Amino acid sequence: MVAISKSQQKLAQSLKLKKYRQKHGLFLAEGAKIVRELIDSQYQIYKLYATEHWISQNEAQVQKKALEYQIVNEKELKKVSQLSTANAAVALVHAQDSDFAINQQGKTLLLDGIQDPGNLGTILRIADWFGIRQVVGSLSTADPFQPKVVQASMGSIFRVQYKRTPLLGLLEQHPDLICLAADIEGSSIHDYSFPDAAFLVIGNESRGLSDEVRSQVQHFLTIPGSGKAESLNAGVATGIICALWCKTPSNDNP
Amino acid sequence: MVAISKSQQKLAQSLKLKKYRQKHGLFLAEGAKIVRELIDSQYQIYKLYATEHWISQNEAQVQKKALEYQIVNEKELKKVSQLSTANAAVALVHAQDSDFAINQQGKTLLLDGIQDPGNLGTILRIADWFGIRQVVGSLSTADPFQPKVVQASMGSIFRVQYKRTPLLGLLEQHPDLICLAADIEGSSIHDYSFPDAAFLVIGNESRGLSDEVRSQVQHFLTIPGSGKAESLNAGVATGIICALWCKTPSNDNP
Repeated sequence: MVAISKSQQKLAQSLKLKKYRQKHGLFLAEGAKIVRELIDSQYQIYKLYATEHWISQNEAQVQKKALEYQIVNEKELKKVSQLSTANAAVALVHAQDSDFAINQQGKTLLLDGIQDPGNLGTILRIADWFGIRQVVGSLSTADPFQPKVVQASMGSIFRVQYKRTPLLGLLEQHPDLICLAADIEGSSIHDYSFPDAAFLVIGNESRGLSDEVRSQVQHFLTIPGSGKAESLNAGVATGIICALWCKTPSNDNP
Repeated sequence: MVAISKSQQKLAQSLKLKKYRQKHGLFLAEGAKIVRELIDSQYQIYKLYATEHWISQNEAQVQKKALEYQIVNEKELKKVSQLSTANAAVALVHAQDSDFAINQQGKTLLLDGIQDPGNLGTILRIADWFGIRQVVGSLSTADPFQPKVVQASMGSIFRVQYKRTPLLGLLEQHPDLICLAADIEGSSIHDYSFPDAAFLVIGNESRGLSDEVRSQVQHFLTIPGSGKAESLNAGVATGIICALWCKTPSNDNP
């Protein structure tokens, strides 16, 4: 067991800042479960630090991918981690510039300025649960590679296709695909017959939809409530709409 | 405009810790919107610090309640705040030991060890949105008065009735009220005819339901998904089940 070098510690710690994630093209994945999801994914690992116990539990996967790793103890692992609680594995991962063509037969979530990293991670986890394969964030949406997003996604970030692009342009390129959005003035989600293929836009946590995206929405949906809260959390609202939209399996899920 | 005394700063800052919240019987409410919800509620305010602008915007409510307040600038406000961003109002609030009899004609959420303060706040906001008036946390559920819970509830904590009590005893006292819970092995939420009055139990984020509570559950519900995520976030799952349960207004909401 060798110590993690000072320069590697510094590199790992720098990745909590967007500036250094961009400079190095790397981001952090942390935690026993999340790193397990990572090694099953298409993402390329730059460095993997893990406890002997974690490696022994995941030996088959690690060997299959011929991954190099460094065995460290928990104390040493803390030096490259953002988490406050004890941990079993930390990886430095190559950020991939994802690009994909919109599947016109499928469901796509569009995020119009989601700011909170916890919400972004939660939305990726929701997409993954319901088998929605494509998520597109506006340029004003939070960086998907920040540690809190990766954490809140519980590894779903490694399975869902995610790209960032201006939403208006994307919507204009797909005039035939219906665009849905949540809005307090919309019609009830319980009365709506969801199309199998569509865009669903989720607006910013406090400002809602941007004007340019709003102008492209064909159908507004509301989640009826009889209480006094002004709104629901963005992740919760996304989950509720997706639960109704994905009641029956969609075409893009084999 | 006078400065906030050092002893008051120290008191406010101490309230981020449970030990001092219990010692002083106080907790913090922060932010323009949340403090506005607070002054509309039954909670008693011990101290209110706010910017001149916030007071002028909320003058009618402040006068109606004959609230005493101290006008401070944003820099001064930071000294009593837990938030990193600029703020308009901070209140020190008397914690109330809430107790209430379960409404047998209504809906009640039971939280069986919800640990994450963001999830607890989000669940209170969901209850408030859907008009579910009663929420009961097990003793292992997070402290509702910690700043992150108050924040994530967006003020709903001031409207929803919340108490902490051992759940097993509570369930045994109400054998006639059906007890529902989310579980991966349950029947689909889309095929279930929800009773108007019931308990809905939400389990711990990683361990799920405790054995003693599980033994009391009459019907398990699952949220069908065709993707690969292992689970949904506890708040999101609660939101989805409540959206279907509260499709039609319930008896307890006039």
